[in-house]
Amino acid sequence: MTLKCEFLIIGDELLEGRLNDSNGPLLASWAFREGLKLERMTFVSDQETLLEAAIKEALSRADLVLTSGGLGPTADDRTKQVLAKIIKKPLTDSSSAREIVTGHYARLKRAWTDSTNQYHLIPESAIPLFNPEGLAPGLLWQTPTQSLLMFPGVPREFASMLDTHIMPEIKRLAPNLQRKTSLTIRTIGVAEETLFNKIAPNLWEDLEQFGKLSSLPQTMGLDLVLTPQKDEDFLDWSQIVRNYVEQSPLKKFLWQYGERSLGDYLIDLLTVKNQTIAFAESCTGGLVSSMITDLSGASRIFKGSIVCYDNEIKTSLLKVAPKTISDFGAVSEACVQEMAIGARELLKTDYALSLSGIAGPTGGSAQKPVGTLALGWAGPLGVGSELLHFHGERKQLKQRFALKALFKLRELVTESPQV
Amino acid sequence: MTLKCEFLIIGDELLEGRLNDSNGPLLASWAFREGLKLERMTFVSDQETLLEAAIKEALSRADLVLTSGGLGPTADDRTKQVLAKIIKKPLTDSSSAREIVTGHYARLKRAWTDSTNQYHLIPESAIPLFNPEGLAPGLLWQTPTQSLLMFPGVPREFASMLDTHIMPEIKRLAPNLQRKTSLTIRTIGVAEETLFNKIAPNLWEDLEQFGKLSSLPQTMGLDLVLTPQKDEDFLDWSQIVRNYVEQSPLKKFLWQYGERSLGDYLIDLLTVKNQTIAFAESCTGGLVSSMITDLSGASRIFKGSIVCYDNEIKTSLLKVAPKTISDFGAVSEACVQEMAIGARELLKTDYALSLSGIAGPTGGSAQKPVGTLALGWAGPLGVGSELLHFHGERKQLKQRFALKALFKLRELVTESPQV
Repeated sequence: MTLKCEFLIIGDELLEGRLNDSNGPLLASWAFREGLKLERMTFVSDQETLLEAAIKEALSRADLVLTSGGLGPTADDRTKQVLAKIIKKPLTDSSSAREIVTGHYARLKRAWTDSTNQYHLIPESAIPLFNPEGLAPGLLWQTPTQSLLMFPGVPREFASMLDTHIMPEIKRLAPNLQRKTSLTIRTIGVAEETLFNKIAPNLWEDLEQFGKLSSLPQTMGLDLVLTPQKDEDFLDWSQIVRNYVEQSPLKKFLWQYGERSLGDYLIDLLTVKNQTIAFAESCTGGLVSSMITDLSGASRIFKGSIVCYDNEIKTSLLKVAPKTISDFGAVSEACVQEMAIGARELLKTDYALSLSGIAGPTGGSAQKPVGTLALGWAGPLGVGSELLHFHGERKQLKQRFALKALFKLRELVTESPQV
Repeated sequence: MTLKCEFLIIGDELLEGRLNDSNGPLLASWAFREGLKLERMTFVSDQETLLEAAIKEALSRADLVLTSGGLGPTADDRTKQVLAKIIKKPLTDSSSAREIVTGHYARLKRAWTDSTNQYHLIPESAIPLFNPEGLAPGLLWQTPTQSLLMFPGVPREFASMLDTHIMPEIKRLAPNLQRKTSLTIRTIGVAEETLFNKIAPNLWEDLEQFGKLSSLPQTMGLDLVLTPQKDEDFLDWSQIVRNYVEQSPLKKFLWQYGERSLGDYLIDLLTVKNQTIAFAESCTGGLVSSMITDLSGASRIFKGSIVCYDNEIKTSLLKVAPKTISDFGAVSEACVQEMAIGARELLKTDYALSLSGIAGPTGGSAQKPVGTLALGWAGPLGVGSELLHFHGERKQLKQRFALKALFKLRELVTESPQV
């Protein structure tokens, strides 16, 4: 059986582009894993009439309706007033809500009275939900076949309440719901259109025989995600898919099965080889290092980096010859090779990668336009470099430069003999 | 007059949490600036029946309906088939679509025939839209009082088509629409609830007298955004608001009027003072430096950083005494003070800030739990440090640590005498 789910993300600040939502992506991946069919996710105004209409519509279609936002203490927080109107019940003083709220304030050693805020008032017949990370309780309203769960919009609070409060409703409404699994086939070096129209015109149909296929172009590379249609043994099924892929034109571009990020992949790979890395970052200004250190376990393989935004740092710390910069420019293969050698010696690692490029919007020239990247490396198999070109805005270019460096690192480490 | 707008973001990959959308936030801020009233933004499945229902509903409510996604070459790209069904027209071979497509392929020096892809087939009476950054054309369908515009989902392509293709429809449907302006009052050091319930219980009502108020808690600090209700002279109006704020309890927490990011604010401030900065980053692993270099103009004030993830780099490069680390640990005020002094000397800047902390999920202890940050600085007025505590997951903690360092830098630079 499937359980139809809709999510309403409440707040004019989101529709006016003044705040970015992160609850949507979080809920979407959570719901998918739990086997919920998220049919819609809607950003909706906190104006009462618009919000009321949207909640009623969602309730007319879905078994499980979730909302985030509008439970706070300010005047534009109208979610519970709207719920009261929809279920035609007054806001009443709830002893269980009061208990939650006074408990929070007691723990924080702060005074709370009825006039501090309105958290103790909730629509009659609604159930207050404990919010471990914040002060405003969530709300649950049930019928025998439906549940409406209302969560605060603050991402930390929202995230902390998902499992605890949604799972019991899933179990109540659909006791036999199964968790979903899918196989991700991650490729690099081929564009979606080239792959499906030119290289392998039957690939889509072939893969769809195994299940539902999505094609997801990433910043760099293309992910193909296959989800089995029926209740099959996942391990058997994924072995069959893998066997097909190994014989197909996909094989050439495949770099990984699974959901691991490139960073995690690199950490695992380098940990096994007992090797360490460092970066010399000019144009990316620390982004490559930050991406690696986003991941727990980075300390096993990453020692540090030199962010050499100013050419003075390239020459003083990394020992790039001033003549290299004056002859070829800082964005040159000669310069990044010296940067990589310098960083590897200074930080005493097995590999050092170096980046110098033009992220724009200024600084480009006819010969070296915005988007030019000089990428260098020094490792157990020697020194090398490439001059590359990318498209995009400044932040996108930084992202692409950084990802390219990590994919190059993967290539170098895969080629190098095991220590 | 107002123009009601809805945006549909199409694709199961978004509803299944396998891809993050960035078109929504982009469109939302664009629409707000242009004076469009974005009433809903809906993530919807690419399954034909669900998509058809969602588009019809949006058309029943809004003057301007925009979509992104589902125009690509793969089998799950069904947007134009659904449009054909809604407007009850067949897909036909369009000479103008054909012209766009063959033009793209000619520029790329690649062959295109009718069987390469279906980009030349569009619903009869729809108008193909030039896509400067990709191959799939967008689609426009008009009635005298409505426009439906369908864009590709690839963020770069979507962004490149907004102005060119939406503006003429806005002008056609609402020639007198006015661009919006608003005033952002940015504060630091006060929580939303404390401000509105405790410190200034009348603040919300007072500010609402000037216009529509939103309260936007940021990762650090709270932004209050005021939009004038009527067509007033914006400069006069904002001067009146500022005068109020200067007399109000808000004054104490105000750090900026306007939308400038903290990074841009710092770049402007330091540029005026002709001062430079550097960072010594352990736990943030390059994030602070990357945040500063996300901004054009960073090179005026930022020279470089040492990412000293491994303690060996702290002692070898930054000259932290090994005894400091063995006596107090790397996450200590003593250590970050030495890191800051070392980085300031090595990189020859006016200021150096240093961060060493525990981003988790492992590495915490009872005395120094996950979320602990030692923040140090060295500058024209001397050396200092603080030991701080934050909540969150690893990436959130890195963000909070980094923002805290930038706010501290603002404090130091504001206090220091002008050079």
